[in-house]
Amino acid sequence: MPERYDAIVIGAGPAGYVAAIRAAQLGLKTACIEQWRDGGALRLGGTCLNVGCIPSKALLDSSWKYHEAAGGALARHGIGIGKAALDVPAMMARKDAIVSQLTGGIAGLFKSNGVAALPGAGRVLAGRKVEYRDADGKSMALEAGGVIIAAGSLPAELPPAPVDGKTIVDSAGALAFAEAPARLGIIGAGVIGLELGSVWRRCGSEVVLLEALDDFLPMMDADIAKHAERIFRKQGLDIRLGAKVTGAKVKGGKAEVSYSVKSGAEEKAVFDKLIVCVGRRPRTENLLAADCGVKLDGRGFIEVDDYCETAVPGVYAVGDCVRGPMLAHKGSEEGAMAAERLAGKKAHMNYGVIPNVIYTHPEVAAVGKHERELKAAGADIKTGAFPFAASGRALAAGESDGMVKLIADAATDRLLGCHIIGPSAADLAQQAVIAMEFGASAEDLG
Amino acid sequence: MPERYDAIVIGAGPAGYVAAIRAAQLGLKTACIEQWRDGGALRLGGTCLNVGCIPSKALLDSSWKYHEAAGGALARHGIGIGKAALDVPAMMARKDAIVSQLTGGIAGLFKSNGVAALPGAGRVLAGRKVEYRDADGKSMALEAGGVIIAAGSLPAELPPAPVDGKTIVDSAGALAFAEAPARLGIIGAGVIGLELGSVWRRCGSEVVLLEALDDFLPMMDADIAKHAERIFRKQGLDIRLGAKVTGAKVKGGKAEVSYSVKSGAEEKAVFDKLIVCVGRRPRTENLLAADCGVKLDGRGFIEVDDYCETAVPGVYAVGDCVRGPMLAHKGSEEGAMAAERLAGKKAHMNYGVIPNVIYTHPEVAAVGKHERELKAAGADIKTGAFPFAASGRALAAGESDGMVKLIADAATDRLLGCHIIGPSAADLAQQAVIAMEFGASAEDLG
Repeated sequence: MPERYDAIVIGAGPAGYVAAIRAAQLGLKTACIEQWRDGGALRLGGTCLNVGCIPSKALLDSSWKYHEAAGGALARHGIGIGKAALDVPAMMARKDAIVSQLTGGIAGLFKSNGVAALPGAGRVLAGRKVEYRDADGKSMALEAGGVIIAAGSLPAELPPAPVDGKTIVDSAGALAFAEAPARLGIIGAGVIGLELGSVWRRCGSEVVLLEALDDFLPMMDADIAKHAERIFRKQGLDIRLGAKVTGAKVKGGKAEVSYSVKSGAEEKAVFDKLIVCVGRRPRTENLLAADCGVKLDGRGFIEVDDYCETAVPGVYAVGDCVRGPMLAHKGSEEGAMAAERLAGKKAHMNYGVIPNVIYTHPEVAAVGKHERELKAAGADIKTGAFPFAASGRALAAGESDGMVKLIADAATDRLLGCHIIGPSAADLAQQAVIAMEFGASAEDLG
Repeated sequence: MPERYDAIVIGAGPAGYVAAIRAAQLGLKTACIEQWRDGGALRLGGTCLNVGCIPSKALLDSSWKYHEAAGGALARHGIGIGKAALDVPAMMARKDAIVSQLTGGIAGLFKSNGVAALPGAGRVLAGRKVEYRDADGKSMALEAGGVIIAAGSLPAELPPAPVDGKTIVDSAGALAFAEAPARLGIIGAGVIGLELGSVWRRCGSEVVLLEALDDFLPMMDADIAKHAERIFRKQGLDIRLGAKVTGAKVKGGKAEVSYSVKSGAEEKAVFDKLIVCVGRRPRTENLLAADCGVKLDGRGFIEVDDYCETAVPGVYAVGDCVRGPMLAHKGSEEGAMAAERLAGKKAHMNYGVIPNVIYTHPEVAAVGKHERELKAAGADIKTGAFPFAASGRALAAGESDGMVKLIADAATDRLLGCHIIGPSAADLAQQAVIAMEFGASAEDLG
């Protein structure tokens, strides 16, 4: 007889590990299958902990401090230092230590909560079974009371610019450069491109961002996006909009890129390193047996209802492999909800109040809807904007660049959106999340 | 006939300037009387902007950056610098520039909102009149539709340790040292003592805090206070509890202090500078005519009801000169409420959710009630504590020291208190404020 679990979770990223721990806490016999390996050892934590938010944040912090030290910002505080020098391997070692500590922490949480961590790959079979291929390639079928698929996502490929892992890299590669490239190209000026561009710009790289779209940050409120673009350009990011990459190849250790511009003309650029970050796609290869009943939608995501249940009762999918923003905290909330529903509880999610943050300096954060989408939907709204320059604390901290924009229903004053660029934008957005969860009015928040 | 205003505000600190601007915005003809002068020029903004929160925050930020540069914290990020040196006058110049910009900003807001700024002193007379003594000492009676007293507070004196303004100073003096004293004594280990002690400790001073009470931060939750004490001691603050100062005098440019300790023994210490910060008292000298009808309570505060109205209808008092915590944002909220009530609106305040913050590093913040006071009141509560070491973002930022403690009603789960020591505690507490305003449960906030 095959081994049986009450809950089998496929994937140990932020969606999967939260689902597994929550399921175990609710009394379910739980296993979590994860294939990420690092020199033979199982690595829990998924993209976020290993090659996403956490290492990015570590490098953003280090590079900002270097930027302050090297750029004369300390002199304004009366702090005199010698010439600042950056030791990139040391910066990377600090980042790696943080990642190891956190992934190890999840292993500890699995252990203390009784989650079985199964190293290897999982594939969903019909009849709530999961095929588990272990680290040695041995395959076995596991029976499950319920399945939670948290298979995550991968960097999207851009066919004209194939990644070689050395000169042309994806976002993970850009978190492991041995030195700051003199000239860095980035294809895609989205959240990841801006964060990575900021890191290396601060470390001294000349940074060019090639963005195919004509608009900057189109998923953000237009006022905030405009403000952000101005600040990022002032920081030295060379943002080229409407620049569609038509080809990239490595020649003599450099990346040669050709791209078309708005006028239709073809341009060329040469970089020491080129990062391709044109979005991410759900990771669904070898994940679903043909007869398992779980379906993909037209864009390759696993189809789920509002409760993250697939077409097969008792089989859930959560996180980056389903619709919605590819954000760690969105995945974690879905994972917790799926585990609770598997355990017979009535959990649900409020998808309207997931904050979206870019950890540049200043930070950019949004929660709720922005003006353009509300107007497109015919909503009667009012907006208010407040510059940070009016805040005493912000001035005292020397961080007066930025603004907060609140959008509310014109009739009821109910808060519909909060958009921020400025110091601690992420923390401020979190306040807006709480206010919106409770249906606050814009005046309440003010 | 004397000049008449719809609203006369006495004092232009955070309580008074907010009251004046709000009153003017609501259509009232408003004057604001302020006696703070700086070389002849009127200085708006009161204690907070001139010698309180704002200059403290500026020095806390600068000194923290110096501490990071000088203490090797940058090396862990891979950032090599020469020996860091601190130019205290430059640090002070930056602080002064911020203060000037903000006080000037209030002058601008007065102008754009049509508030008449009257330089000089105000005294409340009977019959809703105010005696205004201008900068030249000329006195006149002004008629008022309503009066808002926002006279603020002063550092409390400690008779055995008289301030000479050079060697023995109050908190304002400690924000203007020309260099870091080699050996700094601080009488009082409250919020102000800890913030000032942190600033100068980071700048290289040896810092001794003499606290008369046996408990550290008794107004904070005991768990948070214990955690904070451990961290501050680790940072090198020499905190001596139960140390009652019996005398202090200046001799040869140094401050000689004697104090008794718990055992009853008398001890002595010598400091290059000594800061007396044993609390603040309401500023009510020459403020109230004997027959004006406004009364003081037993502790010297102006007596007001829940809406900040004094015994005289139409005469309000707000901010530090009335009961409640001496906090700028509490005063501002009261000022806005008083102005709105003068204008006939039904404003009120929620005194239960005023956050209290110590801007040390890490920050300490509290909102709502703490465990000891709830237990003393016989409440049936449950508590939860979360260390920051479990937070990925905190680790990535190298800021894993600290904890969050939530206290909720055992039966309803309604959040009663949130106590934090750690990175961005102030911002996190603000989230708890919003949650508590809307009666959130502890699980909602989690």
